[in-house]
Amino acid sequence: MTLTDSTSTTINRAGIRYGDPDFVLGATSPVIEHQLRHRSVRAFLPTPVTEEELRAIVAAASSASTSSNLQAWSVIAVTDPERKRRLSDLAARQKFIIEAPLFLVWVADLDRGHRLAERDSKPLGATVYLESTLLGVIDAALAAQNAVVALESLGLGSVFVGAVRDHPEEFAEELGLPPHSVAVFGLAVGHPDPTEDADVKPRLPQTAVLHRETYDAGRADADLPEYDERLAAYNRAHGLTGAWTERVLARLAGAASLAGRDRLRDILERRDLPSR
Amino acid sequence: MTLTDSTSTTINRAGIRYGDPDFVLGATSPVIEHQLRHRSVRAFLPTPVTEEELRAIVAAASSASTSSNLQAWSVIAVTDPERKRRLSDLAARQKFIIEAPLFLVWVADLDRGHRLAERDSKPLGATVYLESTLLGVIDAALAAQNAVVALESLGLGSVFVGAVRDHPEEFAEELGLPPHSVAVFGLAVGHPDPTEDADVKPRLPQTAVLHRETYDAGRADADLPEYDERLAAYNRAHGLTGAWTERVLARLAGAASLAGRDRLRDILERRDLPSR
Repeated sequence: MTLTDSTSTTINRAGIRYGDPDFVLGATSPVIEHQLRHRSVRAFLPTPVTEEELRAIVAAASSASTSSNLQAWSVIAVTDPERKRRLSDLAARQKFIIEAPLFLVWVADLDRGHRLAERDSKPLGATVYLESTLLGVIDAALAAQNAVVALESLGLGSVFVGAVRDHPEEFAEELGLPPHSVAVFGLAVGHPDPTEDADVKPRLPQTAVLHRETYDAGRADADLPEYDERLAAYNRAHGLTGAWTERVLARLAGAASLAGRDRLRDILERRDLPSR
Repeated sequence: MTLTDSTSTTINRAGIRYGDPDFVLGATSPVIEHQLRHRSVRAFLPTPVTEEELRAIVAAASSASTSSNLQAWSVIAVTDPERKRRLSDLAARQKFIIEAPLFLVWVADLDRGHRLAERDSKPLGATVYLESTLLGVIDAALAAQNAVVALESLGLGSVFVGAVRDHPEEFAEELGLPPHSVAVFGLAVGHPDPTEDADVKPRLPQTAVLHRETYDAGRADADLPEYDERLAAYNRAHGLTGAWTERVLARLAGAASLAGRDRLRDILERRDLPSR
């Protein structure tokens, strides 16, 4: 593969990614330049996602790493307008779930293992442990991130929907999920509406997330005030308010800030994933 | 971007991915063709990963989606041979951790939020809930998968190391991790040893992981026997034994098959992530 889009060689996409024009990569590739352009898309055109596009997206998801090749994930492709409307009602009433022609619900799926065990009259006792739920969640996340990278390469856009975890039991009922499985997040997918006022959102500087040999909290936090300024500037430019720290503190303040997700452990127990 | 590698247009990489020559994609892209080529690399040349390569890999990781932009992840880059040896001893003694010039440990990091809360004298009560641990695990997984896609585009290879969760407390001590954080998995990174006997491993067919509108267990399981045959053929070709189902059943049989990870919930509680 070579880079034939001549503009890409003149735009410092890594600098945009960090909101820091001085940040320049000394090694890169067309794939990395593609990844640097990621943004969440929350406004979609009505154009459908084709069957062939969906197959390509799932093939990329299948190509992600998976713990011990267990592939403890499934994905439900929802296109029915009425079902999307009901799922939107359950997920903070986010209207892009209805607008997006395709809503993918990613599932941590330990039930496939249970069905195999039942078929072969074997024991399957490990799924009661938190480790197994985490394994399914990790597998679903690895697959979904590969799907995002793939769909963006087809000219599509997407946004993750964590609010699926606000009402996992209702999601399971609507989607007919078996026991030993839970919807981890959704992904609204479609053709980006070019009029949406959104751009690449600056991320924490590498000093904040990358540690050398051991964790160094002092070094990691030194540049956070500057990041707050960068994100406040991004928000001002896009009609939003506030900086990063206040968002983090609001989001993690306590049970009331979790939109019901403080009940998640009890819900998982009722779905036969008791997180022991 | 355009595809200039002429061989890529003649090889059916999606067919290889599924171990099914009849599976052909009707839509694809250079990025998706790149993703389809993923394989785990467990044998490395001694050539180091450069600082510029590491910065590019982390920039890709930073470009992944993240829940509410919280970015509740960190990564520790370990290159010190003695530290890698100690970490290998803790992670099922897998020798590729020592051989790989770079070992990345991905951390679900809720401590950054706690440090901000302490600095600003604000409450931060949500991290006691399982939801917050899952959020950090998901953020770490999304970032790490983007890192894998990126490093492979630089000619590097990698393998995930879930055995990091065999001994999370010892990992935390070795890496100086703060409370409210836990190592989720490792990623051994380096230049692939071209003599390694490994290839693209066939994944479950799309019928098994992709559901339409609602979950359909019967349809999902119909092609599993054929997949078992495909994986058995792959294993035979690479000097391994067994099929897929027996691996799943062995791995999830019960507490004894979890290599100590049945203690994970108690360990998280001691690391101030009590999964309520």
